[in-house]
Amino acid sequence: MLITLTTDFGYTDPFVGIMKGVIYGINPQAQVVDLSHGVPAQNIMAAALVLRQSARYFPRGAIHVAVVDPGVGSTRRPLLIEFEESYFIGPDNGVLSLVMREKTAGRRIIHLTNPAYQLQPTSATFHGRDIFAPAAAYLSGGVAPEAFGETITDFVRLAWPAVTKTGTTMKGEIVYIDGFGNLSTSISADDLKEVRERKLRITLRDLSILGLAANYAAVEQDKYLALINSWGLLEIAVYKGSAQKCSGAMIGDKVEVTWVP
Amino acid sequence: MLITLTTDFGYTDPFVGIMKGVIYGINPQAQVVDLSHGVPAQNIMAAALVLRQSARYFPRGAIHVAVVDPGVGSTRRPLLIEFEESYFIGPDNGVLSLVMREKTAGRRIIHLTNPAYQLQPTSATFHGRDIFAPAAAYLSGGVAPEAFGETITDFVRLAWPAVTKTGTTMKGEIVYIDGFGNLSTSISADDLKEVRERKLRITLRDLSILGLAANYAAVEQDKYLALINSWGLLEIAVYKGSAQKCSGAMIGDKVEVTWVP
Amino acid sequence: MLITLTTDFGYTDPFVGIMKGVIYGINPQAQVVDLSHGVPAQNIMAAALVLRQSARYFPRGAIHVAVVDPGVGSTRRPLLIEFEESYFIGPDNGVLSLVMREKTAGRRIIHLTNPAYQLQPTSATFHGRDIFAPAAAYLSGGVAPEAFGETITDFVRLAWPAVTKTGTTMKGEIVYIDGFGNLSTSISADDLKEVRERKLRITLRDLSILGLAANYAAVEQDKYLALINSWGLLEIAVYKGSAQKCSGAMIGDKVEVTWVP
Repeated sequence: MLITLTTDFGYTDPFVGIMKGVIYGINPQAQVVDLSHGVPAQNIMAAALVLRQSARYFPRGAIHVAVVDPGVGSTRRPLLIEFEESYFIGPDNGVLSLVMREKTAGRRIIHLTNPAYQLQPTSATFHGRDIFAPAAAYLSGGVAPEAFGETITDFVRLAWPAVTKTGTTMKGEIVYIDGFGNLSTSISADDLKEVRERKLRITLRDLSILGLAANYAAVEQDKYLALINSWGLLEIAVYKGSAQKCSGAMIGDKVEVTWVP
Repeated sequence: MLITLTTDFGYTDPFVGIMKGVIYGINPQAQVVDLSHGVPAQNIMAAALVLRQSARYFPRGAIHVAVVDPGVGSTRRPLLIEFEESYFIGPDNGVLSLVMREKTAGRRIIHLTNPAYQLQPTSATFHGRDIFAPAAAYLSGGVAPEAFGETITDFVRLAWPAVTKTGTTMKGEIVYIDGFGNLSTSISADDLKEVRERKLRITLRDLSILGLAANYAAVEQDKYLALINSWGLLEIAVYKGSAQKCSGAMIGDKVEVTWVP
Repeated sequence: MLITLTTDFGYTDPFVGIMKGVIYGINPQAQVVDLSHGVPAQNIMAAALVLRQSARYFPRGAIHVAVVDPGVGSTRRPLLIEFEESYFIGPDNGVLSLVMREKTAGRRIIHLTNPAYQLQPTSATFHGRDIFAPAAAYLSGGVAPEAFGETITDFVRLAWPAVTKTGTTMKGEIVYIDGFGNLSTSISADDLKEVRERKLRITLRDLSILGLAANYAAVEQDKYLALINSWGLLEIAVYKGSAQKCSGAMIGDKVEVTWVP
């Protein structure tokens, strides 16, 4: 059974490796995949986005563990959520919420309280090791979700930045910047569906881009372009360069799309 | 059979991947887990600490390979040590020593000299590939420890920084700084056992912290706190911040705990 | 079946994890090994070198996927090349070419065009997910190479920097700098075979090194040395230091070896 890990633990410390030791100790048959451990420290939104864009590419039944958890050891609840035949495990701080934005039906939420499926005594600083990794491992080994604790009905939700449309303008913002410096916006291909064939102008700060490119190589090296990226989102990029470095853009920067009516 | 890897190879070069190729070529059934490859270059103490704090979370029988090896190709010996039903493989420079601090009984040390279990010819610069990975792979495949070379009785040991107690003061030092900037000290929960219920003051440089917190979120954002961390060590941290950046603290900095008698 | 991944995706984003999700979804029995994801962005030559130096350490039958792909979504072709009982998958931009420098016989090149073995619709920006990962997964699951598309006869080749010999001088250049700052040159042990027993002088910029060292520890700390490294290449290094930082050397810098006739 596949278990994915998404954390802000980075690649210097052995924390991720320790979680894997715990998982394999409980279920030697588990298969663990690193989704990302380079989430910026304590950036819950970034981890929620990673999960939102990645989970669909994993087979049904996969168990996704996300540990970006500044409130570890406090009263924030550890959760297991069943959604669309996959499982999501992590702290109740919103990190699990963006992936299940579209549908609300068929979702089951468990508060992870059963000490039988936790390392004892649990530490105050590393629930990834003591609570979340064991939960994923036991679940992958066949323990039923309801055995981990009581079923609850609510969980903390993050808001996807609103996309607004007025007249011939659509407004969104930058939600993710990847390692190449490509700028993903909150505006999806779906949002643009009805105007995609028009003459579009995409603006960000003092930058103005005409039209959607078919791919990065459609412009000359070091030139800006806009396209629909692999996450189905409007993206601003620079061919063989970093749009982030060229523009100085940051998460939250406003992006506008305008068109001739 | 589980094999863990701890190195200072970083994540840019293919050295770790090459070691895995060698391992899977010898034993396709092996299961390899990365503990950390972000150990600072040539920092034997850091790797020894990683192993010390991590090995206990892996199942018995696990094979832990540590390659921080500035003396590669020289006369320093390659070792396999059996300890508490686990195996430790690496150069004889102290990297394997901190994990087996508590007990000395039941330990067997093998000098890895049998060329039948090495890539030939062995290079002068990459024993991770030529000696340590093959040893781990053959061992995981059932080759007996004594087949790898002669049994020896000594190995290089690193000293755990001494914790001293005089009157109402305990002195230790910072031994590890994690990627969040949390400062682990040499003072353990055990060291503090008898005074933990007193009014403690923890000092580091010009910094003074009162009492032990239950978790990071027990103080306001950007405030210092001290707690017992997931490694059972006294730690100085900043909630949602980096104690390392805030304080400028470095490995080896002295830390004092004082209390009212 | 073993699948290796080499990309310039870095360790911050979930792109590599997504590729693994696609692979395991198609073939749960596949075994995926990360070779490196720290290839500098869009540096095709660096990735080609990684593959060249690493592939030989993997068992026959291994499938090596390299995705450094600035032309993704354009007309550059996606390829599968069979070579010496191993498989190489990636874009036709030279990234697959250095590994198969020595021999040209027994090579089969397939243009990956069959949509049945691709995620549909394929994106314009992430063929690692939509074309290369599925190809590796289906191939590892037993699909025959010729099922993926038509056989072609040419592919883009990168040139290995020439090593020239005149009189008592051999000239090469720096081709790779590893994370320790060690400088690999284009000059191989083979190139040096006939003069290796002479008094050699290795020069780089204003730096001059006498003779080949047996290993790093053969000189004092922070001193330069030259040796034949684990890739069989002449390397300039600093014991317990970084030759790159000490010398300021860069990829492409000329290196000379001279000897007394």
